[in-house]
Amino acid sequence: MIHPKRKKVERTVFFVSDGTGITAESFGQSLLAQFEGYEFQHVTCPYIDSAEKTAEIISQIHNTHKLEQIQPIVFMTVLIEDVSEALHQSGAYIVDLFQSFLPGLEQQMGEHPLYKPGKKRSTAHSHSYNRRIEAVQFALENDDGARTRYYDKADIILLGASRSGKTPTCIYLGLQFGIFAANYPITEEDFEGSLALPKPLLPYREKLFGLTINANRLSGIRHERKPDSRYASSQQCHFEVQAIEQLYRRENINYLTTTDSSVEEIATRVMSLTDLKRRLK
Amino acid sequence: MIHPKRKKVERTVFFVSDGTGITAESFGQSLLAQFEGYEFQHVTCPYIDSAEKTAEIISQIHNTHKLEQIQPIVFMTVLIEDVSEALHQSGAYIVDLFQSFLPGLEQQMGEHPLYKPGKKRSTAHSHSYNRRIEAVQFALENDDGARTRYYDKADIILLGASRSGKTPTCIYLGLQFGIFAANYPITEEDFEGSLALPKPLLPYREKLFGLTINANRLSGIRHERKPDSRYASSQQCHFEVQAIEQLYRRENINYLTTTDSSVEEIATRVMSLTDLKRRLK
Repeated sequence: MIHPKRKKVERTVFFVSDGTGITAESFGQSLLAQFEGYEFQHVTCPYIDSAEKTAEIISQIHNTHKLEQIQPIVFMTVLIEDVSEALHQSGAYIVDLFQSFLPGLEQQMGEHPLYKPGKKRSTAHSHSYNRRIEAVQFALENDDGARTRYYDKADIILLGASRSGKTPTCIYLGLQFGIFAANYPITEEDFEGSLALPKPLLPYREKLFGLTINANRLSGIRHERKPDSRYASSQQCHFEVQAIEQLYRRENINYLTTTDSSVEEIATRVMSLTDLKRRLK
Repeated sequence: MIHPKRKKVERTVFFVSDGTGITAESFGQSLLAQFEGYEFQHVTCPYIDSAEKTAEIISQIHNTHKLEQIQPIVFMTVLIEDVSEALHQSGAYIVDLFQSFLPGLEQQMGEHPLYKPGKKRSTAHSHSYNRRIEAVQFALENDDGARTRYYDKADIILLGASRSGKTPTCIYLGLQFGIFAANYPITEEDFEGSLALPKPLLPYREKLFGLTINANRLSGIRHERKPDSRYASSQQCHFEVQAIEQLYRRENINYLTTTDSSVEEIATRVMSLTDLKRRLK
């Protein structure tokens, strides 16, 4: 429920980490999205791994506290003990992601945690890193129907109208899951006569997956790129979307609507709708 | 400490969510990386939002429990009450990311959480979504020195040897932070005579940021792409890396080494070393 009459309270949230801070931020945003009475101001503080940097953050927290007259909130993923302790004494409301769970996990595992920051992601030495980079490269080289001769190497081929979200989804599938994703736009030329499956796609039916999007939304996106063009017109967008969705249904191509989804959501849904297996550990 | 003599125990970890599961997985991986005695098998279960899907996961948890003879671990970000409850009764060791913090936050905020899944990410309706897509598009169109005429629009221009990590870093900067990042490779031709700053870059000195990489590692990456080429030879890689690092120093270009870093880490470090402000809310 949105309360239109209630003015939102400004409140600063710090995401503090001795690593990238990506986990703290992504997690914090999930939780904060559940509270509608506030306008949260985000401050992300990665690589807080020294006394100097810690002191700087603490002083920022104190200033914010004075200014806003309300306790700032700190989401933290910090393994360095001194940094962690100082934050706990900062007067902020602390959401300590590691300390809340590490003692319990320690007991479960029957071993001490390493307490080493930045141990998670696949680094340049690892197989996963190579796979991700190759997969992103694959997405770039097989973007927008530019080349179709490597489709045999693709894990999936996304179809859709121009600006329906194909490219970022392919890149994200590569970066996050190591999936080789190509994409092929259904364009003007394909619409001449009745819309049939473009020839280069015929041998790869089992790899095809369709994206579609609300026609008004598509028109809005296209207007930003080419204002007042026929390409962006509501009529053209309605026509294309309708024809493309008919094509998907006629050809039995699995598809989903991207209108209200983020890139992450589209990619994750594609994964779960297709039983694609991620290629990373 | 690695214990070479101790065999790692296989143990399955479930990441369960009524949303994408990205938060549960990213957070869980951070924590699990702190325990070295186990070989964790990951099972990611996104969009668990119905009784049927929940029952399926629970039965998978039971089977795993029997098979491995050890309690499976569940990291969960679930807002739907029935799903959450069922998981808590599954016999797994539960790390409940939302319920551990929501009651405390509820008190802090003085309002009830919405308990609506999938509220976080910027969706196709939002300003942030457009900015991310534009930023990824910018990275693609200004990749690898292909075009330099839009450098005035770039927030940053990454330099580096071929295969030093420029492209994925630019894409990630766009996707995660909405940053317009171009990149320019320092290539063979630039090395003729003494290495000087390539001409197209001269007007944009303040936007330049260098990547470098361990020469042996670079050679390894290049061998995967073009085996046994001069391009991939250890000698060539050492020569290039040394010359490029000299260039950075001589021209006072800020730079960092990507050798042991993930794409996320490189991008986050670039952000914090350059005081670039993220363009997304």
